[in-house]
Amino acid sequence: MNALIIAAHGSRREASNEEIRQLAAALRSQGGDRFDLIAHAFLEIAEPSIPDAIGVAVEAGAQDVVVLPYFLSAGRHVASDIPDEIALAQRRHPGVRMRVTPYLGSAPEIAELVLSLTGVSDRT
Amino acid sequence: MNALIIAAHGSRREASNEEIRQLAAALRSQGGDRFDLIAHAFLEIAEPSIPDAIGVAVEAGAQDVVVLPYFLSAGRHVASDIPDEIALAQRRHPGVRMRVTPYLGSAPEIAELVLSLTGVSDRT
Repeated sequence: MNALIIAAHGSRREASNEEIRQLAAALRSQGGDRFDLIAHAFLEIAEPSIPDAIGVAVEAGAQDVVVLPYFLSAGRHVASDIPDEIALAQRRHPGVRMRVTPYLGSAPEIAELVLSLTGVSDRT
Repeated sequence: MNALIIAAHGSRREASNEEIRQLAAALRSQGGDRFDLIAHAFLEIAEPSIPDAIGVAVEAGAQDVVVLPYFLSAGRHVASDIPDEIALAQRRHPGVRMRVTPYLGSAPEIAELVLSLTGVSDRT
């Protein structure tokens, strides 16, 4: 059994955190065949934390956990903080395979996505 | 003549700001046929500011300026700060058409992009 954890920064604005929850829900309907469990986690401010979300997935039976940093740039959070959180979870669950994907902003498709948005709105 | 301005937050990490410059460069090669001018701007910390970047585009001849908020969630920056910056630029250049697109994170393709990244890396 495998799991995907979307790891976002976390915000004091509840609406921003809700966007992440909704993304996880959208992924569950779109990517449900590739992952048995899809969840969200927050690095700061909001909950669950990344180790806690991984823990829940492991409790549910996950033996292969993929963490996706939902960040646009490769700052300290992506370079150090998220790997540190995953390392913490790895120590708690040494038998579980844990991986981290490239961060969202590194996807080459971002440029195409930007261009697609330029045709969407038209408010002055 | 039209222009696209990618409006990012701006970071104290120069490497993060450089990612935005590189995105604008990538867009110039991919979207050069849709926009006569593609530039970047920062809301805070780094330069150029959004009004300054719009000003440069207008000086270059742009009569139609599209600003894309390069943000993942609809926080205060997207809801208020970027519109305020555009309004400032609009007062400086009343004859120029200025529009703002939906913010990056609102694109429905984000979920698909996330799933595509889960197959990319494999480091433990």
